[in-house]
Parts: sequence; structure tokens; C-alpha cells
Amino acid sequence: MTTGQGDPVEPMAGLECTAVSVAETLKRLLVGRKLASTQLGETLLPKRIALPVFASDALSSVAYAPDEILLTLSLAGLAGYAFDWPVAIAVAVVMLVVVLSYRQTVHAYPSGGGDYEVVGVNLGPKWGLVVASALFVDYILTVAVSVSSGVQNAKAVFPQIVGFEGITAAVLIVVLMGMNLRGVRESGRFFAIPTYGFMIAVIGMTAWGLTRIFVLGEPLSAPTAEYDIVGNDFYSSLSGFALVALLARSFSSGCAALTGVEAISNGVPAFKEPKSRNAATTLGLLGTIAIGMLGGIITLASLTGAKLVDETGGVVFTHEGEPVEGHTDTIMGQLAGTVFDNFYPGFLFVIAMTMIILFLAANTAFNGFPVLGSILARDGYMPRALHTRGDRLAYSNGIILLSVAACALVLVFNASVTALIQLYVVGVFVSFTLSQIGMLRHWTRHLAVETDPAARAHMVRSRAINAIGATCTGVVLVIVLAAKFLYGAYLTIVAMAIVFAIMSAIRRHYTKVADETALVASETRTLPSRVHAVILVFELNKPTIRALNFAKASRANSIEAVAVASDEEVVEKLRNDWEELNPGITLKVLASPYREVVNPFLTYVKSLRSGNPRDVIMVYLPELVVGHWWERLLHNQTGLLIKSRLAFVPGVMVTAVPYQLASSAYALERAVRSDETGAAWRRPGRGQVHTGARPDADE
Amino acid sequence: MTTGQGDPVEPMAGLECTAVSVAETLKRLLVGRKLASTQLGETLLPKRIALPVFASDALSSVAYAPDEILLTLSLAGLAGYAFDWPVAIAVAVVMLVVVLSYRQTVHAYPSGGGDYEVVGVNLGPKWGLVVASALFVDYILTVAVSVSSGVQNAKAVFPQIVGFEGITAAVLIVVLMGMNLRGVRESGRFFAIPTYGFMIAVIGMTAWGLTRIFVLGEPLSAPTAEYDIVGNDFYSSLSGFALVALLARSFSSGCAALTGVEAISNGVPAFKEPKSRNAATTLGLLGTIAIGMLGGIITLASLTGAKLVDETGGVVFTHEGEPVEGHTDTIMGQLAGTVFDNFYPGFLFVIAMTMIILFLAANTAFNGFPVLGSILARDGYMPRALHTRGDRLAYSNGIILLSVAACALVLVFNASVTALIQLYVVGVFVSFTLSQIGMLRHWTRHLAVETDPAARAHMVRSRAINAIGATCTGVVLVIVLAAKFLYGAYLTIVAMAIVFAIMSAIRRHYTKVADETALVASETRTLPSRVHAVILVFELNKPTIRALNFAKASRANSIEAVAVASDEEVVEKLRNDWEELNPGITLKVLASPYREVVNPFLTYVKSLRSGNPRDVIMVYLPELVVGHWWERLLHNQTGLLIKSRLAFVPGVMVTAVPYQLASSAYALERAVRSDETGAAWRRPGRGQVHTGARPDADE
Repeated sequence: MTTGQGDPVEPMAGLECTAVSVAETLKRLLVGRKLASTQLGETLLPKRIALPVFASDALSSVAYAPDEILLTLSLAGLAGYAFDWPVAIAVAVVMLVVVLSYRQTVHAYPSGGGDYEVVGVNLGPKWGLVVASALFVDYILTVAVSVSSGVQNAKAVFPQIVGFEGITAAVLIVVLMGMNLRGVRESGRFFAIPTYGFMIAVIGMTAWGLTRIFVLGEPLSAPTAEYDIVGNDFYSSLSGFALVALLARSFSSGCAALTGVEAISNGVPAFKEPKSRNAATTLGLLGTIAIGMLGGIITLASLTGAKLVDETGGVVFTHEGEPVEGHTDTIMGQLAGTVFDNFYPGFLFVIAMTMIILFLAANTAFNGFPVLGSILARDGYMPRALHTRGDRLAYSNGIILLSVAACALVLVFNASVTALIQLYVVGVFVSFTLSQIGMLRHWTRHLAVETDPAARAHMVRSRAINAIGATCTGVVLVIVLAAKFLYGAYLTIVAMAIVFAIMSAIRRHYTKVADETALVASETRTLPSRVHAVILVFELNKPTIRALNFAKASRANSIEAVAVASDEEVVEKLRNDWEELNPGITLKVLASPYREVVNPFLTYVKSLRSGNPRDVIMVYLPELVVGHWWERLLHNQTGLLIKSRLAFVPGVMVTAVPYQLASSAYALERAVRSDETGAAWRRPGRGQVHTGARPDADE
Repeated sequence: MTTGQGDPVEPMAGLECTAVSVAETLKRLLVGRKLASTQLGETLLPKRIALPVFASDALSSVAYAPDEILLTLSLAGLAGYAFDWPVAIAVAVVMLVVVLSYRQTVHAYPSGGGDYEVVGVNLGPKWGLVVASALFVDYILTVAVSVSSGVQNAKAVFPQIVGFEGITAAVLIVVLMGMNLRGVRESGRFFAIPTYGFMIAVIGMTAWGLTRIFVLGEPLSAPTAEYDIVGNDFYSSLSGFALVALLARSFSSGCAALTGVEAISNGVPAFKEPKSRNAATTLGLLGTIAIGMLGGIITLASLTGAKLVDETGGVVFTHEGEPVEGHTDTIMGQLAGTVFDNFYPGFLFVIAMTMIILFLAANTAFNGFPVLGSILARDGYMPRALHTRGDRLAYSNGIILLSVAACALVLVFNASVTALIQLYVVGVFVSFTLSQIGMLRHWTRHLAVETDPAARAHMVRSRAINAIGATCTGVVLVIVLAAKFLYGAYLTIVAMAIVFAIMSAIRRHYTKVADETALVASETRTLPSRVHAVILVFELNKPTIRALNFAKASRANSIEAVAVASDEEVVEKLRNDWEELNPGITLKVLASPYREVVNPFLTYVKSLRSGNPRDVIMVYLPELVVGHWWERLLHNQTGLLIKSRLAFVPGVMVTAVPYQLASSAYALERAVRSDETGAAWRRPGRGQVHTGARPDADE
């Protein structure tokens, strides 16, 4: 990526490219920005930066996964809490397996093949599309769950939120949307601060808590420590099926801790050399830290007696036989309050870091969603313009779609992480499982052609790891589906199916059109014999004169100006003006008994070609270029209508001859601004490398 | 209007015009229709048809005006009903004055000058715009009031409606909207049946009722006859200010009977010769019938003891000291039930005719609203495309705007005619008053140049009548404003002010643009020196080949195909295809380090002109013509974006080269269908002639 230092465009054919912009200053600003982004692209990430860049999503889930484990266990009453460690260990084991599996992917796809690519290449495009549908739905859920968790955690500091969780989360999502629509975007490095901050907060809290308990001998006690729990009758029996169901549900919710782990495997190209090894090391580090944080929180909760109850499941706290209400602080909130009961800034730091990292995790989805859309567009599953179009429109539509869907979710589920988590995780494990199966195929395919024994041994080992990964994630997927299906996972499946169906339909449509427009050798060489230029005239003003001049310059076989007599007064004035000015082209006036413009003109244009089907008509339309949306309602409408109707007439081209009104400068300014935004989000910063399946990321 | 018999278009320059449509059958259908409408235009209306055509709006108000008079009087309790005759007579007198005044207008403006024209010509465009604003708001109120009254009358037959009046009215408005959007429209003659039906119903009911009472000696008694009324304390005193206020309010509501009287003066050109005299006679007839019907209903109500109470004003029926609830049938409903108590079909006929004529009166607004928009567009107060554009879009927007506004009104006011009538009438009397003042000016102006004593005498007499009219309507306007201002008329004033402000702003904008684009003699003759053709290529398919061929045929000074290397794979394939096919034009590939298309292309096009400001660039964009709205999202988007950005670059024209996909046939079919609709509503039927300020209506 060494081109485009001074100027974003460098014609390959060696043509000199000089800036002739109407707004030179604005452009310089643009170019300046782009230079900066190019420099950023040339800087590869050392591990210490890559870790926070890719880990914020994965680590942020540590903020809610322990809560969901304990909350689900509360269904069995206090006795259920005995299973917190087994469940946490099961989650940690799956995390370990997934991390090990993705280390294989990192080595096999150093170009940063995302799950979509790995599955598409190895299992076929249909399965790739399944992964894409899962990712699509998961982006929405990432926003909803992260923001909801942020709101739940914020309750420890702002108890006023209680009762308004849904609306608060919706407002936050709208703020995120606004930020992203305006194009406020942080560089990759910016992520380092809160991610390390969150790590320091959680690890520091754990360390200080353990120090106080074991070293200083202070008996720390969470606000919920003295409470008893009255569980759900069904689960409280803790026997046979009830126990299995409880553990399955708790484990499934805990698996939310795994979301975001795959991010590093997508971002390999952004690492410093040796890319694959550094990425694999970072992935290992991420896994270790996440497992450590999860373990630390569960340990602290267990030691301080911090508890949570699933109120929607009918579980309540009791104290000396009396029900206690209103204890809805998160585990993180309870622990921070307990460990830092004598140091308020520490408490605030933990809560603030938790909220910020959750907000950043949601923002990740805002960056990743359009990138996913762009990749899908490349393969014809989304409107093709999303792939190449450098403007804000496509990007904005994605952001708005994501925000509206996430807002709907947080409002419907009142920002309850517990409810939303039932929908989450399914998509993640669908893509985990398919990705691991894809890797199995990958190694098997390579083993078929590889002859070097050392390489073969390595591949066999990798294949074994991916086989374990596939089995493990597959089993988890089945458990998650079974445990959550009726609680909400079915909604995710339905949403995925809808997304899948729409994307398949788009692809089918593009294929159909490609077939229809494909070249047939015999048809390509019939040149039109003559070109008739027709200038549609409404009044004689500068735009019309410009259209006449441009039409004259293009030397058609015949040329005439045509007006439609929809209003006698107007046409009379036009005739007089024409005679007076004499622009050198005959004016033809078409009768219009019904005061129409479109049909008389259409019929006339058709008549011009009637005798000579090989002739083409070039219709010139003067067009005013305006600056505001409402001005567009006031101008060019008849022209647009005529253009849209002429499109159905074979052998007719329509040439718009723009005339720039003074107010158009505003619109140009806006357009340039949105280009900058468009350029900004395709910088090789975090958002982009995150999904990473971008084929040219390592250019 | 003798041209366009076989074909709607006949080029004046003598060019032969043959139909070369892609859908010949559809077009024949179109032409067939148009012929029919031309014939209709040639048939002028005899008085017996003109009366119902123009009277439905004015006569329909007889259905609710008596109710509103009695309802308001009920505020003073039973004693208030003593004033029913004085109020009705006052309304009748105003009606007489207005009819006489408009007879002068009919003679002075045989071309059918609407109030907007009369005022604009005589008092200046600003006052004309005031009238237009009033008409604009009144069209919305006509729909709301007529439909609401229809719903209130329907309650006599369908008591289930009680409690759901608002929603029922809204549904009816949506039905009307649907009918009008689909283009179901009745011919002028169709109006004759229900209008005469309504006249027969009301006059027949009155005659039969009087016969039963006076000839057969049957003591007819309305269901509310035996009830007493407990009025509002303030008005019940019937002393001084309270009495004046009561009569002013009752009279103001009763003046709703005058709405629609001006319609005939707009429709003079549609009358048989002698147009003016026939129109004046019909106007007189209309006045007589309306006054007769109003008198008949008041008489019958008085004789049978039919009453109504203003429940929102705190007035209730009592019977033997006990409050009675739920008697909300309209006067028409009560009278029909009483007079035809032994003949149910008679009762049904009256109610049905009332409902139908009210529905037709609402439909009048749907026909008139776009015509008003078209006239205002001609004068630059509305988007200009509304004036000439023969398609459904403009028309549809008007219908939707009207429907949404009327729906909002009936829902907010729960279809209460009493509440809505507070907003109504203001606009009508604003335009009555201004129109009469305009006529005063008209006669004064003509008197200044007229020398023939007989003509002068005639003019002086006419001026006197219009002076009385102006004074009378002006006084009524003041009374209406004073009596209704706080009850809702202020809303009308605010709405009128907003409409006025928007229309003024549009006009100012058009003037500004006209100044900006006006020709300056020195600028008109600079011809571009060379034309460079650039074909933007995405892939090599039929649409691209067509664009290449068309570009070749237009013989530019230079010609090249340009692709942007936003995706290496795609561009590589394009290069190979190009080499293989060799279309005879060099392909230039622009580098795009940021995977953009728009900016590299834009910069390149600018660079082409950099050395030669007098050159122009002709950019050819292949464009797919599709059939469904969603297909538009999938195609041409990048092209549209490029086109919109190129519009800001001086010296660049953009030529769209359409390629019709098979699916485009659907869209063409729809377009032709909507043209038919567009043509249908500009037929010289009722809707059009109604507002009538159409300058070419008498061609």
C-alpha cells in the first residue's frame, strides 16, 4: 500500500492526475486525512497492541457470563450455587478448546480468513452463507447484549436507572448510532486504554479481594451474602433430569464468555512478522486472560457470598424467611462494592471500565457489520453497491438497520441480559462448529497432496485438534440449542433463516440478471447507424443554452429542440424568446391537448425511430443541480419522470446536462464530508481488520 | 378541443406521428379512453345535469347545518330552541346574498374564474395566495366534516358505530383514498343520480311529513320530542351577552350550509350556451333548493319536536327529571324515522342518500385538491411539476396528503361534526369576502373605462350587489371568527398561515432560481470545443456493449472505456474479457487503493478537462431497467452515486444508456396504467371544472 500518498487516485495507464476540484481546500483536507490513514495501514501491530485491539469483544463478555451462570443456578435455590465451579470449569475447557482450534486456523489462513471464508472455501458457499446469516444476527445481538449489560452494571452507580433499563439501553444505542453515522471513529490504538483498563480493574479487584481475605484476614461479605434463595420447585429437586437441565442452561449461558474469541483469527494480517506465530501467541494470551478473569470473578463471588437470582424464573431472595426485593446489582457491581468498600474510587474505576468496555464491544459490531455487508456484497448476497461504494449511504443504512434491530430487542426484552442471552450464543456456536468442520476438510484436502512427512505430521496434529474443536463446539451447540430453544433460541434460528433466504434470493436475482445480460458473440457488433439529438426545452435560460451548446458540440446526425405545448402562455413566451435569441437550432412544439408533457414527448421520440430501428435518439435534459433536499422536490421532477419513461423505449439514451446553482455548493460540501467518512471506515484500523476477511488487507 | 381525436399527440410542425409503442394493446386501451374523454369534453352540460354536478357539495351541507344550529341552541336549554327560526332565516339571507353576488361573478368571469383568480387579478397575488391557503385548508376540512357527518347519520341505521365514530370515519377516508389512488373516478353525469336522490329524499320527506301532520292529521312526534333539555348555566340566562354569543355561535355553525355554493361560478365554461345566463340560473336554482331544504328540515324538526344536545358543552336530555343518555341520532335520522315510522324503505332511502351525498362531497375534495395544486404550481407556489406532470405521482401525493390530514382530524376530534365545524367555515368566508371585494374592484376598474350608459348602469348595479355581498360575508367572517376563534378557528388560521408561508417560500425560491438562470446575452455563444466520451465499465456484458456502441455512434473527439480497479479479481477478469472480445475501444483501468469507485473516477474525469476548460466530457453509464422497486436497490446504485457526484463537476454530461431487462415489462405496464389514471383526472368532468380556474377549460 505505497500508492496514493499524495493523491488517492493514480491512474495505472500513466495518465497525469492533477487536482481540479471546485473545492480545493476541502479536498486537501480529504487528502491529508487519507495520507494519515495510509500511514496507519503501514504500521503493523505488536502483540501488546493487538491484544487489546482484538480482545475487547471477547473480554467484555466476562462482565456478564459469570452473572448468567449464577443466575441460572439460582433456579435450584442456594443449593444450585454448589455447581458454580463445575460450570465455570466446563466453560473454561470449551474456551481452551476453541482457542487451541483457532490457533490452527491462524496458521492455516495467515491472510485472516474469517469463519465465512473458511467455511465457504471448505464446505461450499451454502454453508458459508449459513455462517454469514449467523454473524449477521449475532452482530445485532452483540449490540443488544453488550449495551444491556452496560446498563445493568451502571445500576450500581446510578440506581435511578432501575425500571427504565430498556429505554436507557435504547437511548445508548441511538447515541452509538449517532456517533457512527457522524463518522466519529477511534483508531485501533485507542482501544488499548479501556481494554487494559478493564483487565487491570478485574484482575486488580480479584487480587485485592483475595489479599484482603487471605492476607489481611478481613472477612469480606457481599451485600447478598446473608440472603437465602427460594428456587424454582422443578429445579430445586436437583435430581436426574432437573439437574441435567439446570447445568445445561447454566453452561449455555456461561458460554457467552466465548463470543468474540474468533476475532484474532480474522486479524492475522495486522500483526507484526511473524504474523501467524504472533497471532497464535496473542490468541493464547487472550484465552488465558479470559479464563483467569472468569475464574477470578467466580472465586470472589463464591468467597464473598455474592449472589444473583433469576426473578423472571420466579426465584427470590429471602432473609430470615422474609422475601427481599430490589437486589439487582450485577456480580461485578457487588464485588466492586465489597472489595472496595473502603475505597470508593476503586469501585468507580471497576464499574466505569466495565461500562466502557461493554460500550466498545457494542461499537465493534457497528464497525464490523458494514464490513460483513461489503464482503457479502462482493459475493452477490447483498446489494452489490455495498461492496465498492465509498460513500456514507450504504454504511449508514447498515448502521441504521443494526441500531433499529438492537433497539427493538432491548425494548422488547427491557435490556434484560438474561433474556437476551437466550438468543445469543447460538449464532456464535453455529459459526464455531462450521468453521472447525471446515478446518477438518482443509487439513484432509491438504493431506491428500502433501508428501513431506514433517508437514504431514503437523497437519495430522492440527486436524486432530480441529476435530476435537468441531466435536466440542458441536456438542455445545446441541446443548445450547436444547437448553435455550424454547427460551428464545428459536427466534435466532428464525431470524437466521430469514436472513439466509433473503441473501439467497438476492444472489439468485444477480445470477438471473447476469445470464440475461451475458454477451452472445453474434450480437456485439451491430453499431447504430445514426444519432438524432433531441433537446427537451421548458424555457429559454442558461441551463437550456448549456444543453443546446453541449448537444451541438457532440455533432449528432440531426439535432432539434423540442417543447411541449402543455401551457399555451408559456409556450408562446418560449417561441418569442427563441425567435429573438435564435440559438441556431429549430424549435419544434408538440401539441398537448391534455396539458401533459410526458406522453406527447414520449410519442414523438418513439416516432423519430419508427422508420429506422438502427438509429438511436440522444435526449438532452437540462438539469438543475441544487443544494438541499427540498429543492429537489421543486426542480427536475418532470425531467426525471421523462427519463424514467424513456428508459423503456429501446434505442434511446438520456443525457443529463447539469447546471450548477449557487446553492449546490452546500451539497458538494456534504458529499465530500461523507466521502471522508466513507474513507475513514475502510481504514485498516480495528473495525476493518476485526472481521478481516477483506482480501486486500495485506496488500 | 378538436385535435387529438385518434392520437393524443399531434406535432404542430407537421411531423407524421405513428405509434411505435412496445405495448401496442395497452396503448390502444389508452387511446380509446382518451377519445372517450375528448368526446365528453365536447359535450356541454344542460342545466339539469349541471345542477347536480355542481351542487352536491353545497346541498350535502344541508345534512349537517340544521343539526349544528339546533345543537348550539341547546346550550340555552329548551328555551334556546325558540331561536331556531331566526337563526335559520339569517343563514338563508346570507345564502341569498352570496348566491346573488356569485351571479355577478358568473357574468363577469364567463371563463370560470375561481375565487383564487378573481382575487389574484383584482387584489393582487398576495391576496390570491390567502384565498389559495384558505381553499387548501378547506379541502381538508370538507373531507373531514363530510365523512364525519356521514358517519353520524349512519348511526341511525348502524348503532354499532357508536363509540367508534373516529375510527369509522378514518377507515372511510382511507377507502376514499384507495379509490382515488387506484383511479376509480365517476363521470360528471354519475353525480346526477345521488344528488337528485338526495333532493328527492329531503323534499319528499318534508312533503310527506307535512302531509301527515296537516292533511292526514297524524300527530308526528320525534323520539326526542318528550325530552327536556338542561342547558349550560351561562347561556341559559338568555340575557344580553349570553344571548348574543349563543346566536352568533349558532349562526356561525349554520353558515356551514353555504360551503360549496361558489362551485358553479368556477364551472361556467362547462355550461351550454348561453353559458353565463345558464350558470346564473342554475346558481339561483341551487340557492332556492338549498334554502328550501334547510327551511323544510327546520320546520319538520320544530313540528315533530326533534332535538339535539351538545354533550361536549355539558348539555343533557332529561325525561321527567331524570337524565337520558345515548340519544345521538342526527336530525335527519330522527326525522326520517318519524316521518317514515310506518314505511321502513323510506327511512332507509333518506339515510342512504344522505350518506352517499356526503361521501360524494368528500370525494369532490379529492378531485379538486390536485387541480388547485396544479393551478398553484402554474403560478410557482407549488412544485412546478404538479402543473404539467401527467402522472400519478403528483396526483397521488396530493391525495395522500389530503387523506392523512383529514384522518388526523377525524381521529383527533372523534368524527364530531360539532367540533370540526368550529374549524370549518372560516376558510370559506375568507375566500367569499376576498372574492366579493375583488369583484368590487373589478367593477370599479371596468367603470373607469366603460362609456356606454346602459353597460355602466348594469355595472353599477352589479357593483352594488357585490358591495352588499362583500359587506355581508365580511360581517359573517367577523362573527364566525369571534364566535369560533377559541373553539378551534384559531387552528384554521394557524394552518392557513403555515400553508401561506410555505407557498410564499416556494415562490421566492423559484424567483431566485429564475434570476440565477436567466440569460445574459454575452454568455450564450461559447460553444464547447471538443467532446470526450468516457464509458464507465463494471463488467463486459450486453448493457456495456450497448453503451460502447452508442458512444461510438455519437462520434466524440476522443472515446475511451474506463474501469476502476476496486476489486483486483473483478478487474483482472474484465481485462481478459476485453482482450478476448476486443470491442475496438481502449480500456483504461484506474487504481483504487481504498477500494472506492466514485472518487478515483471523479478525479480522472476532472483531470480530463484540466487543461482545456472549453472541452466537455460525456460520461456514458450503462443502466439496467428493472421492473420492481426492490430490484432498484440491487442495480445501478453505484452509477447513480457517480452521476450525482458528477453533477457538481462543470463541463460534464452524463448519458444513461438503458438496457431493458425482461422484468422491466411489469414496470412499463404500471407506468401506462398510471398514465391512464393521470389522464382520467384531467378530464373535463366535475372534479376539474369544480375549481375551474383552469385557463384552457373552454378551448
